[in-house]
Amino acid sequence: MPQNTQRMPQTHPNPASVFDQGALAECIDACFECANVCSSCADACLGEREHLMHLVHCIRLNLDCADVCGATGRVLSRLTQPDLNVLRAQLQACLAACKACGDECERHAREMNMTHCGVCAESCRRCEQACGQLLGSMSAEG
Amino acid sequence: MPQNTQRMPQTHPNPASVFDQGALAECIDACFECANVCSSCADACLGEREHLMHLVHCIRLNLDCADVCGATGRVLSRLTQPDLNVLRAQLQACLAACKACGDECERHAREMNMTHCGVCAESCRRCEQACGQLLGSMSAEG
Amino acid sequence: MPQNTQRMPQTHPNPASVFDQGALAECIDACFECANVCSSCADACLGEREHLMHLVHCIRLNLDCADVCGATGRVLSRLTQPDLNVLRAQLQACLAACKACGDECERHAREMNMTHCGVCAESCRRCEQACGQLLGSMSAEG
Amino acid sequence: MPQNTQRMPQTHPNPASVFDQGALAECIDACFECANVCSSCADACLGEREHLMHLVHCIRLNLDCADVCGATGRVLSRLTQPDLNVLRAQLQACLAACKACGDECERHAREMNMTHCGVCAESCRRCEQACGQLLGSMSAEG
Repeated sequence: MPQNTQRMPQTHPNPASVFDQGALAECIDACFECANVCSSCADACLGEREHLMHLVHCIRLNLDCADVCGATGRVLSRLTQPDLNVLRAQLQACLAACKACGDECERHAREMNMTHCGVCAESCRRCEQACGQLLGSMSAEG
Repeated sequence: MPQNTQRMPQTHPNPASVFDQGALAECIDACFECANVCSSCADACLGEREHLMHLVHCIRLNLDCADVCGATGRVLSRLTQPDLNVLRAQLQACLAACKACGDECERHAREMNMTHCGVCAESCRRCEQACGQLLGSMSAEG
Repeated sequence: MPQNTQRMPQTHPNPASVFDQGALAECIDACFECANVCSSCADACLGEREHLMHLVHCIRLNLDCADVCGATGRVLSRLTQPDLNVLRAQLQACLAACKACGDECERHAREMNMTHCGVCAESCRRCEQACGQLLGSMSAEG
Repeated sequence: MPQNTQRMPQTHPNPASVFDQGALAECIDACFECANVCSSCADACLGEREHLMHLVHCIRLNLDCADVCGATGRVLSRLTQPDLNVLRAQLQACLAACKACGDECERHAREMNMTHCGVCAESCRRCEQACGQLLGSMSAEG
């Protein structure tokens, strides 16, 4: 995580949060990384002129996942008076988007040897897992 | 809905969709309107110098709702090879964000006579309803 | 413009603005329409399986224009204590993005008979013009 | 920079760029960091109940800067067939947004001892400088 992004939560006037601080920091970072990497993967796929026809579904899922992860990262990084229902539902949407995009990218990395899809699949899996752990810590609390 | 936004789905090479076309068009328009109106309401609340202290939760929910509705509108307006799990989960997140923000804005419109919150509550209710109807049409199809 | 989006500026506690109100409302609406239409055009191009190879530059410019117009629309729709240098520079960037995307889409509409590119070119031209007029009214004021 | 974000440009099928690779990577990372930090700073300011009245301009500039930096980061991270006029104009807008927000945050860090504004000012200065260097390398090339 960029150093300053990591420092921000510690400077907040209301740092107490509904989440475990470590799990939250990991999830915010995973969301923003995944948003950026998915946007780059869509563009890299677009540049694969020879294979472009086979990458249409991947580009579509990349763009969806970039939008959903970006919104999730921004919502999670707000600490002032959060709404638990919104957080929970957006985390579930982010998990679904990362799973769909991660599955598709993983397939292209394996079958078509697309390195950018391999990196993107990693970022999707990391974000899917981070959302799952944050959701798990929420339901544990009630 | 702006006329050109409405014309786009009809020009798509794969217009057949998992959704009823009318319900989809209404939901896309409601999402984008709500994203814009929530972003404006956050700014209008910020300008209410006398009442600002009481509008903190509203601004927070406005910003979340703007992010979530914007992402949902973009995901819904893509017609090429959609993923139903992503659509369903993001619609549920959008419904939750619109409900939370609509409830808060409605209260400020009623108790503090905030006109911008009244308009924003209307847009949130419209979007909440449109998401619910689109979700209903999905589960009816299996 | 969606009705509620239009009503918001009139409900703002500080409606006085550095801009002519009509020109500002037109530009905000043009920015949000263009952002949405460009995002849809990228997706429609992606669905043009037969012509996809020739639409790579168009998709790239669509995605850039959608990002730039979306940011411009949000910045313009904030009325609380604006910064003129930021507004001016972002309007110039928006004008450049709309010109580049409009030129490319116009060419595909004419040469390849792509209806979605034709609609997108219209929205780009409208936004390019609206940004130019708002910029003109700013420099006239000093 | 998150490791995977850094790896993406090297996996692109068309890695050759109009920019020096090191300066581009630094600018993309600075844009995304600044977008995230500005969004967090707006929320932290919103939580400063005692000083909120004095932070209105800061929150407004934070939100603008977050939108502008986010759009700039996404445009820069696309390597497929870029348009130089769009890149140049968006970099200038980003520089202006970072300068305005950095100036305001710096003042609050100094005069009101706001730690989040101090971190945010750092990220704005870094991004302002990275945009300036990338713009400088463009004009040097003609």
